[in-house]
Amino acid sequence: MTISITINLDNLHHHEEHLTSSAFLRDIVIGMSDGLTVPFALAAGLSGAVNSTGIIVIAGIAEICAGSIAMGLGGYLAGKTEQDHYNSELKREYYEVDHLRHRELEETKEFFANLGLSEELQQQATEEVAKDKDKWVEFMMKYELGLDQPDPKRATKSAFNIGASYVVGGLIPLSPYFFIKTPLAALEISVVVTLLCLFVFGFFKSKVTGVNPWWGALRVTLIGAMAAAAAFGVAKFFEAH
Amino acid sequence: MTISITINLDNLHHHEEHLTSSAFLRDIVIGMSDGLTVPFALAAGLSGAVNSTGIIVIAGIAEICAGSIAMGLGGYLAGKTEQDHYNSELKREYYEVDHLRHRELEETKEFFANLGLSEELQQQATEEVAKDKDKWVEFMMKYELGLDQPDPKRATKSAFNIGASYVVGGLIPLSPYFFIKTPLAALEISVVVTLLCLFVFGFFKSKVTGVNPWWGALRVTLIGAMAAAAAFGVAKFFEAH
Repeated sequence: MTISITINLDNLHHHEEHLTSSAFLRDIVIGMSDGLTVPFALAAGLSGAVNSTGIIVIAGIAEICAGSIAMGLGGYLAGKTEQDHYNSELKREYYEVDHLRHRELEETKEFFANLGLSEELQQQATEEVAKDKDKWVEFMMKYELGLDQPDPKRATKSAFNIGASYVVGGLIPLSPYFFIKTPLAALEISVVVTLLCLFVFGFFKSKVTGVNPWWGALRVTLIGAMAAAAAFGVAKFFEAH
Repeated sequence: MTISITINLDNLHHHEEHLTSSAFLRDIVIGMSDGLTVPFALAAGLSGAVNSTGIIVIAGIAEICAGSIAMGLGGYLAGKTEQDHYNSELKREYYEVDHLRHRELEETKEFFANLGLSEELQQQATEEVAKDKDKWVEFMMKYELGLDQPDPKRATKSAFNIGASYVVGGLIPLSPYFFIKTPLAALEISVVVTLLCLFVFGFFKSKVTGVNPWWGALRVTLIGAMAAAAAFGVAKFFEAH
């Protein structure tokens, strides 16, 4: 699943010291906190509707499998797509700089005008930027189109880390069902263990994204609890009808 | 689930004509194509492992419930978090402009230096940008920190659209199981209908993100098929053991 609300950590130089570890950490935390939420809610939902934990384990494993592939492979292909998109726009900018130079000069000037520079300075700055073609194209990619060069290795690694964390995260709420035969008894342990883990991961997730960690931890825990409660209620309703 | 690979549509002025409809369209397509994938794979996985469609319907409904809440509520809270983060950085920049003016001037100059402007022009441009405090802070937010002001209404609407589309998308692969009592017979129809829908939605999704729509459609269909096949295989394996 892909939500396109992103806090671009790489530009937050206030938090520069966190950067090298945070990309990896962020993938782990994203995959794991989502892995904790959905399989947890699914198992909780089924606990209200079936009499054997065997079927819950199978459904849980199938969901972890599906979710991690959708998330990991989806992320990988999204990364590839971003790369393709960047390359095609790059080609286009080189073409435009060569063949529509006048229009590109105007757009560059417009950028400086939007910064609030004076007419004279707009002209001078445009001339200087346009001197070196490669640098100019780079400038247009970044400030006209808002595109940063994506790192292809990063996307692959990121997809793998997120997918793997989803599996690990998903096995946590499911694990009690492996050992306990009564669904509702397994659910009790699953709820305690999972909400605890969600709180801890919500805490770290918030640290990575730079918001108040206690409030963030509460939010993540709340989402998990609400998803599980809703799944439980809806499954019970459908089972009764 | 949150994958942070984003193509920032709002900056692609090549595609300006699509913009007003595309934010809504994108939410629908994202929610629906993910809703199609995971419940589809879960139902497929269970079809290989159980004898009655009743349990598949309940598991599917529980998953749709969990997934749409995790995605919708998760997206909503991520939007709120982004808003909080923006506001706290904004406050910080105002503070820095007032109390660490010298450092901020240096950072502004550095920005122009990175564009390749001459020493003299760097100085002049910095002075002009720094004249108007509000515009200067806006400049720092955007180009130093890479943060655009988030639209709070947008996040709420977006979360709702994505969540609702997930429900609609999830009901498509599940619908054959409502009417057919044999899991594998229902699966056959589910596979045909869902892969067709995934192809259509992959096509539109790619149009929105600006990549080759046929290739994009194939990718989305492939992810769905692989997730379903993997879930089927793994569930069958666990059912046999």
